[in-house]
Amino acid sequence: MAERGHILLAVTGWDPQPWQAALARHAPDRRVVLAPDGAQDPAIDYALVWNQQAGLLTHLPNLKAIFSLGAGVDHIFNDPELPEVPIARVVSPDLTERMSEYVAWQVLDHHRRGPAYRKQQEGCVWHEFLPQPAASEMTVGIMGLGELGRDAARKLRSLGFRVSGWSRRAQQIEGIDVYAGAEQMPDFLASAEIFVVLLPLTPETRGILNHGTFAAMTRREHLAAPVLINAGRGGLQVESDIVAALDMGLLSAASLDVFETEPLDAASPLWGHAKITVTPHAAAASSPDQLVGPIIAQIEAFERGARLDNLVDRRAGY
Amino acid sequence: MAERGHILLAVTGWDPQPWQAALARHAPDRRVVLAPDGAQDPAIDYALVWNQQAGLLTHLPNLKAIFSLGAGVDHIFNDPELPEVPIARVVSPDLTERMSEYVAWQVLDHHRRGPAYRKQQEGCVWHEFLPQPAASEMTVGIMGLGELGRDAARKLRSLGFRVSGWSRRAQQIEGIDVYAGAEQMPDFLASAEIFVVLLPLTPETRGILNHGTFAAMTRREHLAAPVLINAGRGGLQVESDIVAALDMGLLSAASLDVFETEPLDAASPLWGHAKITVTPHAAAASSPDQLVGPIIAQIEAFERGARLDNLVDRRAGY
Ligand SMILES: NC(=O)c1ccc[n+]([C@@H]2O[C@H](COP(=O)([O-])OP(=O)(O)OC[C@H]3O[C@@H](n4cnc5c(N)ncnc54)[C@H](OP(=O)(O)O)[C@@H]3O)[C@@H](O)[C@H]2O)c1
Ligand SMILES: NC(=O)c1ccc[n+]([C@@H]2O[C@H](COP(=O)([O-])OP(=O)(O)OC[C@H]3O[C@@H](n4cnc5c(N)ncnc54)[C@H](OP(=O)(O)O)[C@@H]3O)[C@@H](O)[C@H]2O)c1
Repeated sequence: MAERGHILLAVTGWDPQPWQAALARHAPDRRVVLAPDGAQDPAIDYALVWNQQAGLLTHLPNLKAIFSLGAGVDHIFNDPELPEVPIARVVSPDLTERMSEYVAWQVLDHHRRGPAYRKQQEGCVWHEFLPQPAASEMTVGIMGLGELGRDAARKLRSLGFRVSGWSRRAQQIEGIDVYAGAEQMPDFLASAEIFVVLLPLTPETRGILNHGTFAAMTRREHLAAPVLINAGRGGLQVESDIVAALDMGLLSAASLDVFETEPLDAASPLWGHAKITVTPHAAAASSPDQLVGPIIAQIEAFERGARLDNLVDRRAGY
Repeated sequence: MAERGHILLAVTGWDPQPWQAALARHAPDRRVVLAPDGAQDPAIDYALVWNQQAGLLTHLPNLKAIFSLGAGVDHIFNDPELPEVPIARVVSPDLTERMSEYVAWQVLDHHRRGPAYRKQQEGCVWHEFLPQPAASEMTVGIMGLGELGRDAARKLRSLGFRVSGWSRRAQQIEGIDVYAGAEQMPDFLASAEIFVVLLPLTPETRGILNHGTFAAMTRREHLAAPVLINAGRGGLQVESDIVAALDMGLLSAASLDVFETEPLDAASPLWGHAKITVTPHAAAASSPDQLVGPIIAQIEAFERGARLDNLVDRRAGY
């Protein structure tokens, strides 16, 4: 049997212990070393990373691939000395399922007027008729139709919602109006009343959730103003623009799972804003086992001669 | 063209005006009379009712059928002098869709720990890891697998949940473990962690959501205690038993859309209970047009010789 490639685990800001334990379960006979000290080992073949230290991977002579421990890879590109090896992002059915739960939960909470009914309950007010369209009269617009966006779209459709979507390149998805690229962004923004953001953070998408975007959301059939749900990355949003848009009525509500700076500062005005639902980057908290499993499976297939899947396009940044 | 049968509209506790307007749209060339005064008209063929006055329908010589304006028919049986004509309940795709929205919304709100995250937000607390299973690790048990229960089951399945269900008679539904009758009720109650109640109110089901039922909900894989969601009828539940079960930890949370007495009294302890979500009988607020449309279509088919659909079994009470 060929020797099994060595693994470097490099996580910053996370406790490495559950990841080491998951690796011990999924790859019991591989050598796993922990950054930063272990990164001296010249025999390292694969790096599994979350927010690795800049330069950490630069001088590993045997490095064959970098695996992101999260669905996003923006954290990897923060390293200006990133070596030229393939980068794979994690695709895990468990993570996808959890994200779609979050999306359906937040879409329904706004659609079914959760905040208003909770307020009525606080005041012991019985007032049945809050006017409300059926799901089939509402359109949910999904920004980012990748692994996560496509699954969320399918599940929202099965709940009865109409769905439109936006991606970088044109694609066809049954039952969904798909818009592509910067050119069709205005049409997309005019197509829906609830917007779900599942974009990666790249040079093109940074700050895309800004005043101009909110002003271009013009469909007004059932809601006074659109609803924004961001579960992509905090860097996509300009938080001061979101607050201003809510206050001036350009948006009617927002659910944010991600923030410009995480953890969100206790002094942030987002916490106490009556129209904002805050969750602490918890939309798709998958367990280390659910993420490490598919990565080790990829490594094993690769060592048997298969190609790596879910590779990141460095130029596009995702 | 044969003469079109006359319609009596008899609603108590509701504003008749929107129903009259819907009838004017859907049956513009039929005579429609309004109870109580109009009920003197011996030419009435059909009665469309919600909570009709006792005895109102007893002496109508031409009455051919009674149509319920709501999905439940318990209100009709409150009349001890009900004539022996067929009773049809309304089946409306719009109502079904809205009920499934409510069910998915409330199931997800508990599954995704909505109350706990809202509490964190109130306190500006960033604490990501509230342990939480994936939908595919949870079983939702649906009590009542009729029009509404079957649609809710299908949609919960497409969100990833495991689903079990309970009905009076045995039936097979793909992907769902179905239990039937009083005999299999204990097994059903041991099969799930979130219970959704979509039963009709009948002599057999009155008060079924009581201490003994909660005590028999024994599955404890992911939740400290089961969650109860009742969108059937208030008469199904013993509210004092629900409060006691929440307080002693037999239930961990409840969402109630229906109540023993509606509107729920401002002094009821349910309003302020930290583990109860109250909505004001709003789970499936369909518009009069969406309900009157299918009823008029049934009447027209009946006048062309077809049989009435969705007939109520008087002995079973639904
Ligand atoms: N909150 C959380 O807990 C959490 C958890 C997991 C992931 N996430 C975030 O979710 C993001 C999406 O994940 P995924 O697995 O679905 O990614 P993915 O499969 O790479 O899909 C990304 C989608 O975004 C589109 N896109 C990228 N750049 C674009 C641009 N400039 N204009 C328009 N569309 C653009 C892509 O278009 P093409 O289809 O044309 O490529 C694709 O449809 C991740 O990058 C991560 O940031 C958040
Ligand atoms: N909250 C709201 O806004 C709202 C709106 C609409 C309706 N509802 C309520 O929802 C109820 C259900 O509506 P639906 O259209 O789904 O009714 P349905 O089609 O008549 O279905 C009733 C279901 O309950 C089952 N069932 C009846 N008695 C039972 C018993 N003793 N033990 C076990 N199962 C029993 C039936 O079993 P079988 O399959 O064996 O017949 C059937 O599966 C209505 O009666 C109404 O009270 C509430």
